Amino acid sequence: MRLGPALIQGVSKNSVLVSSVKQYIIIRRTKYQEAQILEFDDFGKALVLDGYIQSTEFDEFMYHESLVHPAMVAHPRPENVLIIGGGEGATLREVLKHNVVKKAVMVDIDGELVELAKEYLGFMHQGSFNDSRAEVIIEDGLKYVEKAPKNFFDVVVLDLTDPYGPEIGRLLYSTEFYAKVKTLIKTPGIVVTQAGNSFFFPEVYEDVLNSMKRNFSVVREYWTWIPSFGYACNFIVGSDGLDPRALTESKVNETLKLRGVATRYYDGRQHEAFFKNKVVVGVRKG
Amino acid sequence: MRLGPALIQGVSKNSVLVSSVKQYIIIRRTKYQEAQILEFDDFGKALVLDGYIQSTEFDEFMYHESLVHPAMVAHPRPENVLIIGGGEGATLREVLKHNVVKKAVMVDIDGELVELAKEYLGFMHQGSFNDSRAEVIIEDGLKYVEKAPKNFFDVVVLDLTDPYGPEIGRLLYSTEFYAKVKTLIKTPGIVVTQAGNSFFFPEVYEDVLNSMKRNFSVVREYWTWIPSFGYACNFIVGSDGLDPRALTESKVNETLKLRGVATRYYDGRQHEAFFKNKVVVGVRKG
Amino acid sequence: MRLGPALIQGVSKNSVLVSSVKQYIIIRRTKYQEAQILEFDDFGKALVLDGYIQSTEFDEFMYHESLVHPAMVAHPRPENVLIIGGGEGATLREVLKHNVVKKAVMVDIDGELVELAKEYLGFMHQGSFNDSRAEVIIEDGLKYVEKAPKNFFDVVVLDLTDPYGPEIGRLLYSTEFYAKVKTLIKTPGIVVTQAGNSFFFPEVYEDVLNSMKRNFSVVREYWTWIPSFGYACNFIVGSDGLDPRALTESKVNETLKLRGVATRYYDGRQHEAFFKNKVVVGVRKG
Amino acid sequence: MRLGPALIQGVSKNSVLVSSVKQYIIIRRTKYQEAQILEFDDFGKALVLDGYIQSTEFDEFMYHESLVHPAMVAHPRPENVLIIGGGEGATLREVLKHNVVKKAVMVDIDGELVELAKEYLGFMHQGSFNDSRAEVIIEDGLKYVEKAPKNFFDVVVLDLTDPYGPEIGRLLYSTEFYAKVKTLIKTPGIVVTQAGNSFFFPEVYEDVLNSMKRNFSVVREYWTWIPSFGYACNFIVGSDGLDPRALTESKVNETLKLRGVATRYYDGRQHEAFFKNKVVVGVRKG
Repeated sequence: MRLGPALIQGVSKNSVLVSSVKQYIIIRRTKYQEAQILEFDDFGKALVLDGYIQSTEFDEFMYHESLVHPAMVAHPRPENVLIIGGGEGATLREVLKHNVVKKAVMVDIDGELVELAKEYLGFMHQGSFNDSRAEVIIEDGLKYVEKAPKNFFDVVVLDLTDPYGPEIGRLLYSTEFYAKVKTLIKTPGIVVTQAGNSFFFPEVYEDVLNSMKRNFSVVREYWTWIPSFGYACNFIVGSDGLDPRALTESKVNETLKLRGVATRYYDGRQHEAFFKNKVVVGVRKG
Repeated sequence: MRLGPALIQGVSKNSVLVSSVKQYIIIRRTKYQEAQILEFDDFGKALVLDGYIQSTEFDEFMYHESLVHPAMVAHPRPENVLIIGGGEGATLREVLKHNVVKKAVMVDIDGELVELAKEYLGFMHQGSFNDSRAEVIIEDGLKYVEKAPKNFFDVVVLDLTDPYGPEIGRLLYSTEFYAKVKTLIKTPGIVVTQAGNSFFFPEVYEDVLNSMKRNFSVVREYWTWIPSFGYACNFIVGSDGLDPRALTESKVNETLKLRGVATRYYDGRQHEAFFKNKVVVGVRKG
Repeated sequence: MRLGPALIQGVSKNSVLVSSVKQYIIIRRTKYQEAQILEFDDFGKALVLDGYIQSTEFDEFMYHESLVHPAMVAHPRPENVLIIGGGEGATLREVLKHNVVKKAVMVDIDGELVELAKEYLGFMHQGSFNDSRAEVIIEDGLKYVEKAPKNFFDVVVLDLTDPYGPEIGRLLYSTEFYAKVKTLIKTPGIVVTQAGNSFFFPEVYEDVLNSMKRNFSVVREYWTWIPSFGYACNFIVGSDGLDPRALTESKVNETLKLRGVATRYYDGRQHEAFFKNKVVVGVRKG
Repeated sequence: MRLGPALIQGVSKNSVLVSSVKQYIIIRRTKYQEAQILEFDDFGKALVLDGYIQSTEFDEFMYHESLVHPAMVAHPRPENVLIIGGGEGATLREVLKHNVVKKAVMVDIDGELVELAKEYLGFMHQGSFNDSRAEVIIEDGLKYVEKAPKNFFDVVVLDLTDPYGPEIGRLLYSTEFYAKVKTLIKTPGIVVTQAGNSFFFPEVYEDVLNSMKRNFSVVREYWTWIPSFGYACNFIVGSDGLDPRALTESKVNETLKLRGVATRYYDGRQHEAFFKNKVVVGVRKG
């Protein structure tokens, strides 16, 4: 480890990832969180919220493509898409790659964060904030789902901070929240959420999984390693009529091609891998 | 991060994983390396060599099953198996699970380490050192391959410290070394090696990959996340006639069943996932 | 920083000292605390309680000589001495160096710790536990002062864990506790306590200082840097008739000589320095 | 340790001080070093060069007053003063407090650093760069001493990065360098240098001490703890006719008063303490 500035990031309750910082670009305390934009030797430019890396220049494509496309591809025609969270605009960018999308509503509680992202993280949003199909609403996701249009969205993408963070964040992973999200979906729709890490936080992961299962008849789990997180990130998909696990490599590739979606990490082959990889929940004695 | 004893482990040149230590069991400087056996809050008991976690109680099954079985299953009848490295005996354990194995030769340079493992790491070797099919040879792998029987082994498992460690270790990942290993194989045989991490050490990974490609006509890559390493571990398989990527889920499961192999992580489904997961080599700008 | 085992030790609320560990000797959870005896590259063998270094082979003389001798020398004839805390026996060792001492009572709450020290920390106690003048009592200091002989001790040395640690420890730095200690003193006696660090924990330090001032008419402060603590350690002396600050270099040296006290760090010159060094309390803006 | 941004700073070869960062103000790679101006939770705003804290808002007065005044006060009438290093301007500030000073020449190799300090570290220089008696020369100290006026300076203050840093810095602590500095002094003059830490780097410290002794008949050592350094900082004074150790508390206070010098840490009492405190060189087994 070289001496100098670094970020100390929690990986579990008992482990931290320390990564050296090349350059600090901006640190700003917004109304909701401490947002830092900085550059790592290992990961390039990054958005850090309350000490946790959210996404980085070098590996964000692994995270955002994995979060967005399995659910999008599983829907036959995702015209209206809701994103909750995702302030840096990269989830919005991936959603808008699907040319069938007519409207993508992104709801983030932190307007200052979105402004920071617009100014400093162009490589993440890549202009998606200016796409005429995009609508950005600055509001608490919990409140938005109360008043949003019912039976409207085909796909809902939940791109939130980890479920084992501050209490308030937990509400966005609850049975009650998913029930409300479900009322916004036009059947057969599909919901996907990032779900933190199932190895280090098994109880929380299983809570989220069960909350999904209480609301959706089809629930699928997948994960991929995100280098800058220090762990593999889990994702959970829920639906009442669509099943991403049933899609073949060729069907996925065909859909991506038809919709004009270009990717670096995700494709039909990776799609199949996602739903075949074993999910290890928790640390069990050998 | 709680205050107290911890292990500071390199993940890349610019990042370290710091994990709190519950209990130190033994620290011993052998002729070749500093060996520690300790207990982590996050990972249970673990073997640490020169500051790097080699395997831990809670996640070693993910590593050892992933290393051993894809190659073993790809061979129609692996009777003679060579393991180089793998001092803690868990790789040997996995190999011996295949009831078709008649002889498993394990060659490790560090006899003191093997003795430590026998005494303190019973949950890893699980008696495999006492299996009548097992032969443990304390010798430098580089020297062993010079004089070992030619055209004898069906499967060779290389379970070595990372290729970006000390210079001496690099030789066990070289084109020349693989060429010698190849002379020991009874065609069609198969070789598998762990290969460190392709995201943080792309040049080294590509060197190893190219060394394999110069020796084998079929070379396949796969990886899985190992929590205690702080990264996903890559593996590379080489063969001149066998292709693990061609095996279906059901074929793998049938083989495991026939050979009496019980596993926790690896199965036919995971096998397919391994060879569909995308391998990301290096940190490229977005 | 080299990779490998290390201790992560709190220096303040916002800073930690990370020091590499050469060898772990023993980690034991006693009824009261987690005791570790280990060897540092920088400090040699050391006693660590609940993650905080208490004393180390290479610098303990700086701490123990500074704690004990200024008060001892300030007393014209310290025959009966009380030590509260000081489980490793080094404070007892320093007290017993004064050949005028007839009885040294050491009261430590943690009997298991004292046994560990006897077995593993011989270089600290150096046989002082076997001195016929020494009496070791395993008891809570708070309880001992309730029932101990009144008007008996000439010098009281408080060698306790830091005042900003767990709540229970704070009681041993309170006005009430010092009042009880005072009842044990044969006038004119003298009390000394270590007091943590006045720069990083100014409020706690001033609390301790005020508690002393409420009980003693003469209160003196001094400090010295202890390398393995990561900070300068403060000490406070209280008395109703004795004043260590009034002693000259030559007087101190003469007393040490008469009493047969050999030291490595403390002497008459250092005594004068102690009471001339400025005490900086707290972090004030420049 | 809270999670988030931090500075990892070397204390010795085997220990680091990790301190949490509240805010990054600027990081700039100059021609000579990586300069960071940042704000610590524990120390306020700070100048960091190549990963080492040079001075901080909350404790710089302890360092700069200790470095400058003992030598200044030991000289009967310091009219011409040379400072080598000290880019942040605080050493210059302390020198100029003595109203007998007619000219203070500050020589720093790094012009960009001086500009950064002027812009961001006003609380350090406090306008001293604009004092008509100050002359700032951007030049390598090694070269400056070759051509500077002989027999001119009364006091020379060496405020350099640590002697155990990069090779180039070592030259400014060598016998040859001090010999050249000596030619610039008007007898009886006096030189003072910071000297890193004698406990963790005893060989280097003794080298510096011996280099001084080879050039000056009177050499005195002192130290004080600097919280943000993680250790006590040593200083060495050399002269051929002046002896700071001989000054009494009252003489020092009188001189400070006559010269209009107001201080927060240094005074006559502290002056005496400096030259009475024991200097511990190296880590010797107990």
